[in-house]
Amino acid sequence: MPIRTIVWGENVHEQTNKTVATIYPRGMHNCIADALNADPAISATTATLQEPEHGLTAARLAQTDVLVWWGHAAHGDVQDDVVARVADAVWGGMGLIALHSAHFSKIFKKLMGAPCNLSWREAGERERLWLTSRHHPIAAGLPEHFELENEEMYGEPFGVPEPMETVFVSWFQGGEVFRSGLTWRRGAGNVFYFRPGHETYPTYHDANVQLVLKNAVKWAHNPAPRIADPNVAPNRTTENAPEKITERGPSLHVKGQEGFR
Amino acid sequence: MPIRTIVWGENVHEQTNKTVATIYPRGMHNCIADALNADPAISATTATLQEPEHGLTAARLAQTDVLVWWGHAAHGDVQDDVVARVADAVWGGMGLIALHSAHFSKIFKKLMGAPCNLSWREAGERERLWLTSRHHPIAAGLPEHFELENEEMYGEPFGVPEPMETVFVSWFQGGEVFRSGLTWRRGAGNVFYFRPGHETYPTYHDANVQLVLKNAVKWAHNPAPRIADPNVAPNRTTENAPEKITERGPSLHVKGQEGFR
Amino acid sequence: MPIRTIVWGENVHEQTNKTVATIYPRGMHNCIADALNADPAISATTATLQEPEHGLTAARLAQTDVLVWWGHAAHGDVQDDVVARVADAVWGGMGLIALHSAHFSKIFKKLMGAPCNLSWREAGERERLWLTSRHHPIAAGLPEHFELENEEMYGEPFGVPEPMETVFVSWFQGGEVFRSGLTWRRGAGNVFYFRPGHETYPTYHDANVQLVLKNAVKWAHNPAPRIADPNVAPNRTTENAPEKITERGPSLHVKGQEGFR
Amino acid sequence: MPIRTIVWGENVHEQTNKTVATIYPRGMHNCIADALNADPAISATTATLQEPEHGLTAARLAQTDVLVWWGHAAHGDVQDDVVARVADAVWGGMGLIALHSAHFSKIFKKLMGAPCNLSWREAGERERLWLTSRHHPIAAGLPEHFELENEEMYGEPFGVPEPMETVFVSWFQGGEVFRSGLTWRRGAGNVFYFRPGHETYPTYHDANVQLVLKNAVKWAHNPAPRIADPNVAPNRTTENAPEKITERGPSLHVKGQEGFR
Repeated sequence: MPIRTIVWGENVHEQTNKTVATIYPRGMHNCIADALNADPAISATTATLQEPEHGLTAARLAQTDVLVWWGHAAHGDVQDDVVARVADAVWGGMGLIALHSAHFSKIFKKLMGAPCNLSWREAGERERLWLTSRHHPIAAGLPEHFELENEEMYGEPFGVPEPMETVFVSWFQGGEVFRSGLTWRRGAGNVFYFRPGHETYPTYHDANVQLVLKNAVKWAHNPAPRIADPNVAPNRTTENAPEKITERGPSLHVKGQEGFR
Repeated sequence: MPIRTIVWGENVHEQTNKTVATIYPRGMHNCIADALNADPAISATTATLQEPEHGLTAARLAQTDVLVWWGHAAHGDVQDDVVARVADAVWGGMGLIALHSAHFSKIFKKLMGAPCNLSWREAGERERLWLTSRHHPIAAGLPEHFELENEEMYGEPFGVPEPMETVFVSWFQGGEVFRSGLTWRRGAGNVFYFRPGHETYPTYHDANVQLVLKNAVKWAHNPAPRIADPNVAPNRTTENAPEKITERGPSLHVKGQEGFR
Repeated sequence: MPIRTIVWGENVHEQTNKTVATIYPRGMHNCIADALNADPAISATTATLQEPEHGLTAARLAQTDVLVWWGHAAHGDVQDDVVARVADAVWGGMGLIALHSAHFSKIFKKLMGAPCNLSWREAGERERLWLTSRHHPIAAGLPEHFELENEEMYGEPFGVPEPMETVFVSWFQGGEVFRSGLTWRRGAGNVFYFRPGHETYPTYHDANVQLVLKNAVKWAHNPAPRIADPNVAPNRTTENAPEKITERGPSLHVKGQEGFR
Repeated sequence: MPIRTIVWGENVHEQTNKTVATIYPRGMHNCIADALNADPAISATTATLQEPEHGLTAARLAQTDVLVWWGHAAHGDVQDDVVARVADAVWGGMGLIALHSAHFSKIFKKLMGAPCNLSWREAGERERLWLTSRHHPIAAGLPEHFELENEEMYGEPFGVPEPMETVFVSWFQGGEVFRSGLTWRRGAGNVFYFRPGHETYPTYHDANVQLVLKNAVKWAHNPAPRIADPNVAPNRTTENAPEKITERGPSLHVKGQEGFR
């Protein structure tokens, strides 16, 4: 079965900015989904901010292997209960790929537990991405470096926790660098951040970028069945201890009581 | 100047449970603060849930190097704005030490971005902590293992992100294991989780536990000045680029505009 | 194509110790290879210390996706040039799984850059392995814990670098703990250490252990083509710089010269 | 007591190359040691390749807290037994700082267990180092970025294991990037790699570089007493098990026997 992927798009600038609408006439999310669907191992659909529950109902997330997230102007409009639901899905095994300005999305910040800040400049300058981890699955088929002639600059320090792996580092014409591809695991879910993708440039039409996204979906996919409740904290009672023990000393909890949260 | 440390105590069971009140007549927070103050390099005070703003005003946090956190029954009563303020302080360089049931505290979960769940059993069983990282500063002066004759059991899997370092792993009489001492960095702040400390046992009177806490405060202390705004995402304009560049292509932002959040 | 796997066995105690020979009449390596071959995704053969070049010629390694290594009594008899060749293969993308007493093998120590020491006891005591990383691919299909009724004890501190991930932690009846399943990446190669497997017990006949090994082979397999020379340090000359620059200042190297090693 | 530091210099090009001799008339090692000694918390001496045992006798290493290593043309001339001795010292708690071309030194490769390769170009181009970890102790007092007007280029991919932390990333005028400041722990020893320092440029006269080196020595210093034998693998016998157990099953080792290596 192909990897069931949702490309979530904020879909704001595509409606309000002529440049963006020209580059992405059907929205950035559809451009990305089309690119993913060119790979028979992936089956991508889309969801947007404007749909009920942002298109991310519990039922749909339960049938989703990997969620790709792009947002920028409307991070604050994403409902907190949907963010909590997505986080639960990630902890239970759904992959998450955060793109570009999604560094400041609620879901990415929630999963990182860190400021996720950076410096930036919108000057259409050249970006060159370098592999730092040779033969990493996310870099499969890529050259050791590739260029995007026009991109927004993101500069270090990038306020994220140390990653599990650094896969790409970017060079910018204006003199900055940025760790452009980073991996983490949160619960049973694999998380990847990929830097490029400013909405006024045709980044998601780039073949190398599309290859990274396809590789990333495959990497992020955890084929294990979703953990039903990734937050459960079971009381393994004395009777159920692996080794025979006898209860001793004073006790706070009444038998069979749930723990505090 | 000694390390300015706040020991934050929930201070609930000390008021409502006779066993706890007997072991910690002045509250667990005071027992821990007293232990820390026995080291001249540390100057510890306390704060509790019941104080206005839980005793954690912005002014006080600004003068705090390390915050030690113990909570259990009343995690949900901690105000979200205080949690956000503490997170900002950590990202700006304040150390945080989360103790025992604080694995489910709002602040620890926020910093981890993960479920932080585990299995548990209150049976007064024996726990033995083993060093896994020899000569780690948090283990300074400790034997390779030490015991707590009565403790609550916490069992793996522990739902936290991979740590920077694993310092202790616990053995439990009933057959479980737990990664009992783990470090992370979040922004400029050092974070340490230390497992022992169930309120119905005299754990914080134990000399080895007290030594861990003193070491951990020193480890968590970042002597650099606090970052004023750890969330800042500055626009480094074309004029201020380190290398001379010329703006190209379409643009979303008006000159001098703040970025989106 | 199935994952081409070599199970390397020292094959010493099987020849000299009656107990070992009885449990593993065709050698431990064949028992492990048989278990792997029960999975159609894996094609396992064996190699032993006694073969020319220990059965690990350059030609054979070039056709190998994953190497499983068990050794104990004769670590010192493994030729250094073969060790260097295996390390190159790992750096170029071959997976390596080091089993039990292979913690002190030349190849594992070389890849770790650390002492790899531990404490030990041969008392046939009970070991219980706990998952610490839920739904990790190496733990697929396993319960949250499983037992080996008789095993050698290995105790912390285990002198290895911090792993990429901790997958298992063991509890021992005699009171010790050990990080029993650890992952690292070295170059393009995935490395996994798995603790159980003392030769006087039937550990490699255990179904859970066999499942771990099958999962580990799949996890360690890097499908990318082998890096021809994983040690190459190319001189990217001024003419070949991605950005046009002019050479300045004094120079040590004559044009086209190789770098120093 | 100040941190007892040895700056080890290969001292070859200073003797054979006029440019290098002019920039570092007393050798690079003395330039670095002088810079370190400007900090009263550090007491630095030097050692060179040409001295007996390369100036690194067991007695001297036992009195050394941090070793700084610069080598380039003569990596192969360093004796293997001295390398093993230095590795033991690191595993026992001595800090190691590898500079620039020491990425290919025997000691650094041994501690990394990885190829440690990179691409390079000697064109005197501009390098700009960016902090990636805000308020890291190694970055104390530094601006968010600083420049070296003339440096050799080192480019990614850098063939080292994922670090504990990435502290600096470099931008190069010719279009490459490099992770310029990386930390690891090996045994009880802290290891830092710092990229700048090509011998034909006055890099070690730069104030920012000198500040990094001073910070790095303090960071790498482990104040715990040196571990006498960092390779010991003690047999904790049944009689000495923390929990009372009874020996069961067959046994390979005769009572009191040493383990195999």
